[in-house]
Amino acid sequence: MSHGEHAAHCDFVLIGAQGDLARRKLLPSLYELDKAGLLHEDTRIVGAARRDYSHEEYRQVVLENTNTFKKEDLCEETWARFVKRLYFFRLDVAEQASYDAIREFLGEAVLPSVFYFAMPPATYGTICQGLNTAGLVDDKCRVVLEKPIGKDLESSKVINDQVAEFFKESQIYRIDHYLGKETVMNMFALRFANALFTNNWDHNTIDHVQITVGEEVGIEGRWGYFDQAGQMRDMVQNHLLQLLTIMAMEPPADLSADSVRTEKLKVLKALRPISHTNIDAKTVRGQYAAGFLKGQSVPGYLEEDGANERSETETFVAIRVDIDNWRWAGVPFYLRTGKRMPQKLSEIVVYFKQQPHNVFEHSYRNLPANKLIIRLQPNEGVELQVLNKVPGLDEPMKLQETKLDLSFSETFASERIADAYERLLYEAMVGNQTLFVSRNEVEEAWIWADSIIEAWQHCGVRAKPYQAGTWGPVSSVALLAKDDRNWHE
Amino acid sequence: MSHGEHAAHCDFVLIGAQGDLARRKLLPSLYELDKAGLLHEDTRIVGAARRDYSHEEYRQVVLENTNTFKKEDLCEETWARFVKRLYFFRLDVAEQASYDAIREFLGEAVLPSVFYFAMPPATYGTICQGLNTAGLVDDKCRVVLEKPIGKDLESSKVINDQVAEFFKESQIYRIDHYLGKETVMNMFALRFANALFTNNWDHNTIDHVQITVGEEVGIEGRWGYFDQAGQMRDMVQNHLLQLLTIMAMEPPADLSADSVRTEKLKVLKALRPISHTNIDAKTVRGQYAAGFLKGQSVPGYLEEDGANERSETETFVAIRVDIDNWRWAGVPFYLRTGKRMPQKLSEIVVYFKQQPHNVFEHSYRNLPANKLIIRLQPNEGVELQVLNKVPGLDEPMKLQETKLDLSFSETFASERIADAYERLLYEAMVGNQTLFVSRNEVEEAWIWADSIIEAWQHCGVRAKPYQAGTWGPVSSVALLAKDDRNWHE
Repeated sequence: MSHGEHAAHCDFVLIGAQGDLARRKLLPSLYELDKAGLLHEDTRIVGAARRDYSHEEYRQVVLENTNTFKKEDLCEETWARFVKRLYFFRLDVAEQASYDAIREFLGEAVLPSVFYFAMPPATYGTICQGLNTAGLVDDKCRVVLEKPIGKDLESSKVINDQVAEFFKESQIYRIDHYLGKETVMNMFALRFANALFTNNWDHNTIDHVQITVGEEVGIEGRWGYFDQAGQMRDMVQNHLLQLLTIMAMEPPADLSADSVRTEKLKVLKALRPISHTNIDAKTVRGQYAAGFLKGQSVPGYLEEDGANERSETETFVAIRVDIDNWRWAGVPFYLRTGKRMPQKLSEIVVYFKQQPHNVFEHSYRNLPANKLIIRLQPNEGVELQVLNKVPGLDEPMKLQETKLDLSFSETFASERIADAYERLLYEAMVGNQTLFVSRNEVEEAWIWADSIIEAWQHCGVRAKPYQAGTWGPVSSVALLAKDDRNWHE
Repeated sequence: MSHGEHAAHCDFVLIGAQGDLARRKLLPSLYELDKAGLLHEDTRIVGAARRDYSHEEYRQVVLENTNTFKKEDLCEETWARFVKRLYFFRLDVAEQASYDAIREFLGEAVLPSVFYFAMPPATYGTICQGLNTAGLVDDKCRVVLEKPIGKDLESSKVINDQVAEFFKESQIYRIDHYLGKETVMNMFALRFANALFTNNWDHNTIDHVQITVGEEVGIEGRWGYFDQAGQMRDMVQNHLLQLLTIMAMEPPADLSADSVRTEKLKVLKALRPISHTNIDAKTVRGQYAAGFLKGQSVPGYLEEDGANERSETETFVAIRVDIDNWRWAGVPFYLRTGKRMPQKLSEIVVYFKQQPHNVFEHSYRNLPANKLIIRLQPNEGVELQVLNKVPGLDEPMKLQETKLDLSFSETFASERIADAYERLLYEAMVGNQTLFVSRNEVEEAWIWADSIIEAWQHCGVRAKPYQAGTWGPVSSVALLAKDDRNWHE
């Protein structure tokens, strides 16, 4: 494909080039962007890590790596182009000479530089300092940060402050990779391109919303890291709250970063605080015990390799979230996420209000409400559940819940679904912040999440055990049952 | 199947038992009802016509007939049961002895009798008289009338008066077979069991509605009859207006005949009259000329067998209908029906209002509106057209109209779709008038239709020729174009 007008025009510096994320996601995504003609011919990709590769050795490493992590065979033409962009520099984050060498290589920057920090946040400050001293920081450059940015408001502020010393907020791109998913992008289209939904997106017509992110996996291998965080910090504070803001935001005036992020921030500010006064009524904490998944017996969280048997870290959270604004008054958003769930499933279910008057009461005592189901995985798609008449002469009329169905994989069968990182790298490289999380968002999310975590500690709320391979503790069912509702199945 | 609690408990007298309708539709439908266990074991079926069959001969005739008009082999068990119900009486409508013989056979009526008049309306009065004199008319019996009931308000009143002399309105079942179609029945479910639609069913959210009933066939064989009627009387006054009332009616308090028919009548009363003052702006009249259909050349209306070459009868009508009530203020219903259209197609398309503000203007200048498509034929089903994001990294975001789809034939693949007559016969036999047209409805529909026909005559509006195999005269396109709209394709 030729390099179109949309090609990203920058130099890309990948700091932490030999880390897992870089190898699995970032380099294969850059290759895909090149394949799609979305990298400008002048764009160079500079890997930097604590290794002693020559450029040529690094190219070989990237080739092997890309072959490993891409399912399809590489396109020779693309690879020939891509490999010429690749350079490598040894980088010790604490060593100024490392940064100077990159500066010397990039020369008098003609293209904006995009620095991707695929490194632990504790190093961000040092890296920024090094880049700055080398003269690599200017008004055009950008920096892309990976989560987690801190583990609470305070620690996130420290990190953000360190970066802010050298970069303006408009230069900082904080990644939440959920925002790069096709189905999440499609939520903008669904909500704002369809009057039928836009007009039915408030407390007048919606009863409640459910957001479920279930993981099949346990903790294998990263027990130590995860145990310090827990599901609340690892999943809710970022991914689930991001999904919630996109569902709940007011229609923005346009799709600019400023408009969209302002609306998302307003949602986060309107979240009703959960504290020691209402923690029991609003949240459920769980931790998986041994159980069965797809017929295999699997160990409990406390039996995993490296586990501290007395850990009280949660691997499951369910929360009733209330949003105190006009649109969502009285409309709860129920969030639920956990490890060792029965299946890998991410979906958002909008329950519309029930029909106020039932003319079919003789055949259907309780008319089920219409539901809009946005499925992120598996089988990305959109479904609308409606009631139809079952064909036949039955007296009284028989009704059945059926779905108006749009499966992405079927409908857009010929289209390749881009990885979330392809989109986000591309957006960072062209300089569009819409799909990145602003500092204000991060901090509002932490304020809300911190309050819950503090309340758990303050009130001694323990993680309730649930059998691996189930949808969490029974209290998660009770959380909805007491509102006369059920989790979508 | 055993005879359930829902089995119809009556004697059924089919007057005009050797006519086309009786042979093609009514007798096969009665057989199907028996097969489904919906005829009570005591129910007898009495054929009456101007023939000299013995009961046994008639049974043989019905057997041959049913074999001819049913696709599947007859079920032996059902047939054995069905054949025992069958009796035949010679009937000359003007001869009292005919009725007396039936009376003698039925005896002191234990079951209610249902008389089906599969006869020309001109005979209804005489038949009623005969039945009454024979003592066959009592409070329990019912009479089922086939359209057309008259050709205008006046002639329909004459016929309805004749029947009303002997039967109360609550005993009279006027058939419009469109009301027995599964998809039409499903319109009740869609509209009144789904809050998402019920809440979006007025001028606030709907832009306009289109109702198309296209026929492929021409007039072959019934030129003489049709030429006296025209498409307005033959299709619009009954079928299309019935579809319109079901789409436009207020939600009834329940599904009883009284509630439903009251609401339908209110719609007919609220139709804005079309007269000589606005006939040109509101209607299009067409008549097919020679053309091509599915690759075959076909003759024009004036070239059909038996045609009067100077006929000005319309074979196509398009009308902009306005309904002057709160719900539909400013929301036109466009009706369109014709013969020799490109395909046999009946569908109702609800166009929702456009998104008032377009955040996707860079990629999609005019956001297409959401549409709900109710397809009566072919491939009965329901579709909702929405905009989704096309997967990919396109900048700005690319949108595409896609459909949330419910095909009856796929979804309910295992269910047999009953013929409209099965349902309507069954409803008449159990005594439920909901799906039958009240006298008030018939008369309101005629008042409105007569006004159009009179205005055509008064203003000399001629039927515009259109090529067979097209969607009517170009003025039909112009009818919507001047409102800045298009027929659904």
